[in-house]
Amino acid sequence: MDAEIIAVGSELLTPLHTDTNSLFLTERLNSLGIMVRFKTIVGDSKDDLAAVFGSALARSPLIVLTGGLGPTEDDLTRDVVAEVLGRPLKEAVEIRRRIEERFVRMGRPMPANNLRQAQVPEGGEWLDNRNGTAPGIWIKHKDSIVVLLPGPPRELEPLFDAACAPRLKQFASGERIKTRVYKVVGLPESEVDNLVAPIYRAYQDISTTILAALGTIEVHLRARASTDEEAEARLAELGDKIELTLGDHVYSTKGESLEEVVGMYLIMRQKTVAVAESCTGGLLAERLTRVAGSSNYFLGSMVCYANELKTRLAGVPANLIGIHGAVSKPVAQALAEGARARTGASIGVGITGIAGPTGGSPEKPVGLVFVALADERGTQVREFHFPGSRDRVRHWASQMALEMVRRRIRD
Amino acid sequence: MDAEIIAVGSELLTPLHTDTNSLFLTERLNSLGIMVRFKTIVGDSKDDLAAVFGSALARSPLIVLTGGLGPTEDDLTRDVVAEVLGRPLKEAVEIRRRIEERFVRMGRPMPANNLRQAQVPEGGEWLDNRNGTAPGIWIKHKDSIVVLLPGPPRELEPLFDAACAPRLKQFASGERIKTRVYKVVGLPESEVDNLVAPIYRAYQDISTTILAALGTIEVHLRARASTDEEAEARLAELGDKIELTLGDHVYSTKGESLEEVVGMYLIMRQKTVAVAESCTGGLLAERLTRVAGSSNYFLGSMVCYANELKTRLAGVPANLIGIHGAVSKPVAQALAEGARARTGASIGVGITGIAGPTGGSPEKPVGLVFVALADERGTQVREFHFPGSRDRVRHWASQMALEMVRRRIRD
Repeated sequence: MDAEIIAVGSELLTPLHTDTNSLFLTERLNSLGIMVRFKTIVGDSKDDLAAVFGSALARSPLIVLTGGLGPTEDDLTRDVVAEVLGRPLKEAVEIRRRIEERFVRMGRPMPANNLRQAQVPEGGEWLDNRNGTAPGIWIKHKDSIVVLLPGPPRELEPLFDAACAPRLKQFASGERIKTRVYKVVGLPESEVDNLVAPIYRAYQDISTTILAALGTIEVHLRARASTDEEAEARLAELGDKIELTLGDHVYSTKGESLEEVVGMYLIMRQKTVAVAESCTGGLLAERLTRVAGSSNYFLGSMVCYANELKTRLAGVPANLIGIHGAVSKPVAQALAEGARARTGASIGVGITGIAGPTGGSPEKPVGLVFVALADERGTQVREFHFPGSRDRVRHWASQMALEMVRRRIRD
Repeated sequence: MDAEIIAVGSELLTPLHTDTNSLFLTERLNSLGIMVRFKTIVGDSKDDLAAVFGSALARSPLIVLTGGLGPTEDDLTRDVVAEVLGRPLKEAVEIRRRIEERFVRMGRPMPANNLRQAQVPEGGEWLDNRNGTAPGIWIKHKDSIVVLLPGPPRELEPLFDAACAPRLKQFASGERIKTRVYKVVGLPESEVDNLVAPIYRAYQDISTTILAALGTIEVHLRARASTDEEAEARLAELGDKIELTLGDHVYSTKGESLEEVVGMYLIMRQKTVAVAESCTGGLLAERLTRVAGSSNYFLGSMVCYANELKTRLAGVPANLIGIHGAVSKPVAQALAEGARARTGASIGVGITGIAGPTGGSPEKPVGLVFVALADERGTQVREFHFPGSRDRVRHWASQMALEMVRRRIRD
């Protein structure tokens, strides 16, 4: 079964907003074996919505409309759907009662507009919205299913899961869709593609997508089959070959972030980590502490932006900075060793570099970053040249620092 | 003139991606006085695209299609547009020459597929793409304009600005659209709405939108008028009233982030800042150093996750932690004063709290955060109770810390 999503709201046609509910809906529909074939965004205009809904009705067996269910004059989805389907709006007594009760509880008079939300096209069912006032609506019309959902994600998402997914299960085709994601660090996108394309091309029934995010390449596999088991088996067959080829560049197969993976390794090996960072300005500490429970292995960071603090906080000898400059291999090494010595952590990480946009020179251009890792086996330092903006340089530096920690504790 | 945007690509119908080019295009079209009335996303299917493009042609004077211009069999936009318009594809000699040259330069044989990119529907003009191989295409068809643009943003954006915007100027109506954004901190969304709704309701010609982002409420104004000056004058009239009403809760009127505003104040007052942060894990330092040039006023941060480091790095007396607990007013105060004393900064900020999801207790629940600010006038401490996830608590804590700094140096 194919589906079509229509997002209603003039704010979705401004430069500020776009429809994101459809990503959630697509994920849920796909997992029921339903593919999304069209997505349309239309404003709060009766004629425009009627035109879009009319086209959808002519071609799609399942139409999900989001937004436009509020109490104001702008909220037209109910009315337009009722009109196009030729099903007059009827008041749902139970919804009316709930709305009236709410205003009594609040001790406020109810504006008449609010009763619009109690109206349901004839023959439709209302779906309980536990997180807002507008109920969802489910209409079986000839061979089509039409679903109306409220726009706010915190209302739409639980409502879909509680009321729509179970109803859709019986209408969905027997087809199942399963996905798998491999996250890769340390290889450029073209290299990943060169390595895995010859493998995935032999699997025409699995759709493979390679996506480049900042510092990570993701390989997405999607298999369709008649049972979950069959789809999983297909994914496993292709996935295992891909994982073998990419080797230890794959850091995650279950969606974890690099900082989560590093955290798991640190707990497993009962190690702790501390950081002395300059150009990343706290980003490496911030990423490590995004992970709940990171206090088990993360001790702290010295963000030494001013050179004097590199000495005072992390113990970098002032003459080292004088001789080699703050952005240099020896200073990165001293930062890592200082972080370790001053905190008692098993692993110390040091980062120094030039994030830009200014501060570069011919010898030390913007994007030059040194990352050092110190542990009981000694200290290693790597030199990087990251392209791009200040943001990108900082993110890449934190990414490669995490990757150095991952490799060191895996070994 | 109204426009319609069609994004082509099956990947845009997965849970991973949605069309974001339309946000850029909408901003640019709006600034030319062109409103976007529909946005559609359709996969790499000849029939589906033909249906969507056909509907668009019947209702919209300007249709912008993005994506599907690559060299592979999946890239169907050129072919479908040519077919629906009844304009056979013709080879553009200049494009063919450029493609062939590129392969000669790379020393590789040219796959025949690549010549597809040299094809242009009869009567159409090709638009130079300086960042990729697929040219854009501009077709004047009866009373409509049809524009085909490549999907990658770094190709689409410069191409639109260089080739489309100048061409569209002559077709655009005389109408001009101007926008203004006020960023507000320290007031809840409903309070902002209560304060400004009575004002903006009197300006029916200006569309006003209130958006809640994390820790910031944004008030967006959009005016349409026949000249830029007139639109700006309308914005100024309403905007000044709104600014007066919201007073010093407005921190930005030109789109700056809170950390940028704080940075400007620090430079203006020739002050420096240092931080000792616990639950934010480096986020406050990271935000301060996102700003290029922040080394002029940001000295550093001690991210003291482990209690021992609060003492060792920031000089918090161990018995203070013993008596009051790490998450307490006195420890926040000691962190702020320690940050200031150990770095010599004019302003020290201290943050301690419980970001969750675990670690809370009935007396000290998740979301409890103390933020302290120390300067030559003394130390102030505020207690906050932030709702929501670990991410939200950390973001709110950094936001209110920045806001305390902003208020302190403004005074």
